[in-house]
Amino acid sequence: MSQRVVFIGAGNLATRLAVELKEQGILIEQVYSRTESSAEKLSQLLQTDYTTTPEQIVRDADIYFVALKDAVIDNVLSKVEFEDKLLVHCSGSLPLSVLNKYAQNTGVFYPLQTFTKHRAVDFKKVPIFVEANSEVNEIILLKLAEKISEKVSILESEKRLFLHIAAVFACNFVNHLYTIASDLLKSNNISFDIVHPLIRETALKAMSMEPQKAQTGPAVRFDRNIISAHMDALGTFPEFRGLYLEISENIYNYHKHLQQ
Amino acid sequence: MSQRVVFIGAGNLATRLAVELKEQGILIEQVYSRTESSAEKLSQLLQTDYTTTPEQIVRDADIYFVALKDAVIDNVLSKVEFEDKLLVHCSGSLPLSVLNKYAQNTGVFYPLQTFTKHRAVDFKKVPIFVEANSEVNEIILLKLAEKISEKVSILESEKRLFLHIAAVFACNFVNHLYTIASDLLKSNNISFDIVHPLIRETALKAMSMEPQKAQTGPAVRFDRNIISAHMDALGTFPEFRGLYLEISENIYNYHKHLQQ
Repeated sequence: MSQRVVFIGAGNLATRLAVELKEQGILIEQVYSRTESSAEKLSQLLQTDYTTTPEQIVRDADIYFVALKDAVIDNVLSKVEFEDKLLVHCSGSLPLSVLNKYAQNTGVFYPLQTFTKHRAVDFKKVPIFVEANSEVNEIILLKLAEKISEKVSILESEKRLFLHIAAVFACNFVNHLYTIASDLLKSNNISFDIVHPLIRETALKAMSMEPQKAQTGPAVRFDRNIISAHMDALGTFPEFRGLYLEISENIYNYHKHLQQ
Repeated sequence: MSQRVVFIGAGNLATRLAVELKEQGILIEQVYSRTESSAEKLSQLLQTDYTTTPEQIVRDADIYFVALKDAVIDNVLSKVEFEDKLLVHCSGSLPLSVLNKYAQNTGVFYPLQTFTKHRAVDFKKVPIFVEANSEVNEIILLKLAEKISEKVSILESEKRLFLHIAAVFACNFVNHLYTIASDLLKSNNISFDIVHPLIRETALKAMSMEPQKAQTGPAVRFDRNIISAHMDALGTFPEFRGLYLEISENIYNYHKHLQQ
């Protein structure tokens, strides 16, 4: 029996996950987004219906995936009667229990990856963490996850929260540092391409040895003169200057502490 | 005519650069380090002599590479008579002019990469930036750099400083964020391996689109509830908590500003 799925949300994660599930033969019945253009675009990709009205979300699907910004979840879900259907959120940080007031059958389906609407990822390598209110629902979600990924596991809400925080550091924050590097280079008419081999090696090195042992640079050496030359040069970039000092001190204190 | 080279310094950069130059047929005549074990280890790798006394650095080499921590450079170089030999430093952040008081012929040879003593890198792909006090010396250094790398260019001191700062953000600071992610996972008995696909995709995405456009996560969405859940969870990690908030605010302000 084929499962029928509804996507509530049409952002980066919803888009990539819905497209991948459809490619693996899952029927996506409908897409909801409060933004008409997002709803329409994703429904076109999936060749399915869409709505921008929570009350018009269809009632006859089997699984409802929620991938909304935390602040708007209640506003949408409180307007839908899920009855005995399986309601699943995709958030790293929300506990399973946030869904208790909307449905009896609840679950979490958290793919650990950074998603952008128009960039395909190899889902087979994306770790997916599943949790559910019952063993039956857990099995439903595990089987669904295994259709798209080779790395599926069960993880409780509290550990998933730390996994998400770790991901914020290793991905979202890292990308912001790439952004700052890119801006600093641009301001000197140097192409961002020049640091590509450095970015690649930094990632590869951290994955092949402990990142603690891979730390290099003026902060870990506590090379005061270099740090102060950098702070001087960043005078025209006040928005990056404070962050430079903050992270340098954090690195120094971390490694000083290790060496004690 | 084969050039004879001396390495003053035996740290990560000196080790990888000296090993690479030797592999490309350059004669490394001697290694200096004030730490005997470092001097000895590098000299064994290179099958050459070493000294821990600046006054015993040989006088008959052609090029002297300096790869010392900024704070100790003067203490070592002021004890050596370089006469008309070519004295070259490998620092991203020091101007060429710091060498003026030690030698008439001066240069900079800056490989843009993160080096760790026992990890080989593909030098062919490492951008090397060269600068010198004269055209003759510039050509000597360009030719030497081209023996080991396909990406050699001339860059003035001021731009090199910004290149180094960009590298600190894109490499040293990024690696520290990997370290924090690793520690947070360890404290929950989760292997760092689980974020490898995320680290890889984050790097690949930033290199294939503008990192500005690749930004995802709670900070850029200004998802207050998620950020405050993360801040609560980080209560037992005060050393990472301040940094979490600082970087989140920096991301939010940066992208808010972009959208205006």
